[in-house]
Amino acid sequence: MPRLPTDPALYFDAHFFVCTNRRPDGHPRGSCAGSGSEKLRDYAKARAKELGIRGLRVNGAACLDRCELGPTMVIYPEGIWYHARTAEDIDEILITHLQGGGRVERLMLQPDQKSL
Amino acid sequence: MPRLPTDPALYFDAHFFVCTNRRPDGHPRGSCAGSGSEKLRDYAKARAKELGIRGLRVNGAACLDRCELGPTMVIYPEGIWYHARTAEDIDEILITHLQGGGRVERLMLQPDQKSL
Repeated sequence: MPRLPTDPALYFDAHFFVCTNRRPDGHPRGSCAGSGSEKLRDYAKARAKELGIRGLRVNGAACLDRCELGPTMVIYPEGIWYHARTAEDIDEILITHLQGGGRVERLMLQPDQKSL
Repeated sequence: MPRLPTDPALYFDAHFFVCTNRRPDGHPRGSCAGSGSEKLRDYAKARAKELGIRGLRVNGAACLDRCELGPTMVIYPEGIWYHARTAEDIDEILITHLQGGGRVERLMLQPDQKSL
């Protein structure tokens, strides 16, 4: 839903949610924690601090319901979804998107995307 | 950060994150789960389905870092924060904000707010 002219300022300039849902091994949908997302969340938190990115909150999230595309993450308020697997992927999202205001096209998920 | 003209459509029209972080009893900051947020999340999920609100995802979240104001929740992409304690509070957020596009002023948190 759109913001209204009377809405207060954002509390976080960027709120970066990393799915850390875990399903049992062998579950047909898989899960983001099963694909290593907890380490990616920890790395993103530490690296964001190291880079001095202000106004950013890196946040764990329960199931974001796009398990087939995991590890998944979404950045608000812009609503851009990413699939990231490595520390290098996280670095690129932090530096290009969250510090630079750009997009990491090679890692972005499209709204109609059902598989990797 | 703002959306860019080339950004894809949103995957969820509204993404409603409910903090379900739990700290040990007696912790000075308290915690949202300690204030009953897990039941509120479950209620919000069931009630949103019952109301037939389309394009909405009710999502558990790890610590949103506004523990003193808990139970806290935030709706994106608009970035509006709420403090809710009861099923009636959740109903009002679902019906007025998420179904009607309005705001529940009595439950909204302001960016500079430090206490309830």
